[in-house]
Amino acid sequence: MNPVSPLDNVRIVLSHTSHPGNIGATARAMKTMGLSKLYLVNPKRFPDSEADARASNARDILGSAQVCTHLDEAVRDTHLAAALTARPRDLPHPTLSARQAAMALVRQARQQPVALLFGRESAGLTASEISQCQLTVQIPANPAYSSLNLAAAVQIMAYELRMALDESVMHSAARLPELASLHEVEGFHRHLEQIMITSGFLDPKQPKRLMRRMRRLFARTRLEKEEVNILRGLLSAVDVRKPD
Amino acid sequence: MNPVSPLDNVRIVLSHTSHPGNIGATARAMKTMGLSKLYLVNPKRFPDSEADARASNARDILGSAQVCTHLDEAVRDTHLAAALTARPRDLPHPTLSARQAAMALVRQARQQPVALLFGRESAGLTASEISQCQLTVQIPANPAYSSLNLAAAVQIMAYELRMALDESVMHSAARLPELASLHEVEGFHRHLEQIMITSGFLDPKQPKRLMRRMRRLFARTRLEKEEVNILRGLLSAVDVRKPD
Repeated sequence: MNPVSPLDNVRIVLSHTSHPGNIGATARAMKTMGLSKLYLVNPKRFPDSEADARASNARDILGSAQVCTHLDEAVRDTHLAAALTARPRDLPHPTLSARQAAMALVRQARQQPVALLFGRESAGLTASEISQCQLTVQIPANPAYSSLNLAAAVQIMAYELRMALDESVMHSAARLPELASLHEVEGFHRHLEQIMITSGFLDPKQPKRLMRRMRRLFARTRLEKEEVNILRGLLSAVDVRKPD
Repeated sequence: MNPVSPLDNVRIVLSHTSHPGNIGATARAMKTMGLSKLYLVNPKRFPDSEADARASNARDILGSAQVCTHLDEAVRDTHLAAALTARPRDLPHPTLSARQAAMALVRQARQQPVALLFGRESAGLTASEISQCQLTVQIPANPAYSSLNLAAAVQIMAYELRMALDESVMHSAARLPELASLHEVEGFHRHLEQIMITSGFLDPKQPKRLMRRMRRLFARTRLEKEEVNILRGLLSAVDVRKPD
């Protein structure tokens, strides 16, 4: 029995699509990347011969598409919903890049259904639609002309979801080391600072540029739990007041 | 005066395109990602109203497109040409993923023109066309259905080229701190090992698993020159034999 792919847990939701060609092209974009769950909220024309033509050999995706009258129906039983937006919104939503969002979605999709929403060709998603999502997604684009075609945006996101799948398989291998918690990392930083002061290397009265540099260094690496243990062991071992 | 973007040195070459809609969608895909140089080798219909319609506000790209009768004309003065292929070919070409190829192309495009070739909708590039390129590119896709629409393939590559640009700008910004040389990093590792032994934390007779862990940690971060100086300063400060 094949294990279910996390991509089977990722829904592509198109809201109020005007051009059936974009629905067909979306189906093809999805299938080329291994996605299959298409939800259509109030499409203007569907089914439609133009959608069929543009879907090429992905007509099965159109055939199994769920047509809904309200966005609620498409996202109701998902555990994470992300909204694609072309421009920054004045809304209290964390915004991720396409790549970051794909990784977050695939991670969640290993457990539960997730949804990725795309709005109207003309105006994108409404503020009310976005408010039903936990995060917004932006595809990095030319600031002078960022107007991607709807199906082209789906293609990029579908591609990044597939790439994230490979990534997350790599990173979820059972043998991957456990990362230290933020609390543990903070404990290490404090210990390091104390040793820097005790050893006379850092003058606590001077600005703490040195500590900022060290924090920056270790922030880049994402310390593992065992590494923090080793580093703190070393700090304890060298913790002897200077015998002067 | 704006500096020239490496993306201005990247040509998108479409060979023998059948559907003018794909040419228009390619222009839009290019412009959304900041690409502008379009070359058309023997397009079936061009210019064409369908191309204009699908280009949306990227019609300027169509207006400045170079139409050629032979592929030679499009790639003649480029320094790196990459051919998109859907399936592995029995040809002596190195094959890169979309992401890898984008990075290689942008790197080269900082100096000289480069080209990325896309073949016919039906059959892709011919063996003879591919043989004029230095490398082939594959977009990771669903093995059961990898047939991306032509303009969708251009969109993914254009997106990866833009992402590679950010990547390479990030890594080449003038103000970026100078990385430590391998020699300096090695000096730090030796110093660290010496302190680990002097402090009694590491038994030199035991297997050096601890040092391997430390090397792995710092290999992940790519130490900067100044960071190595700080770390070695700290190691010197704590370098006092245990008093007993």
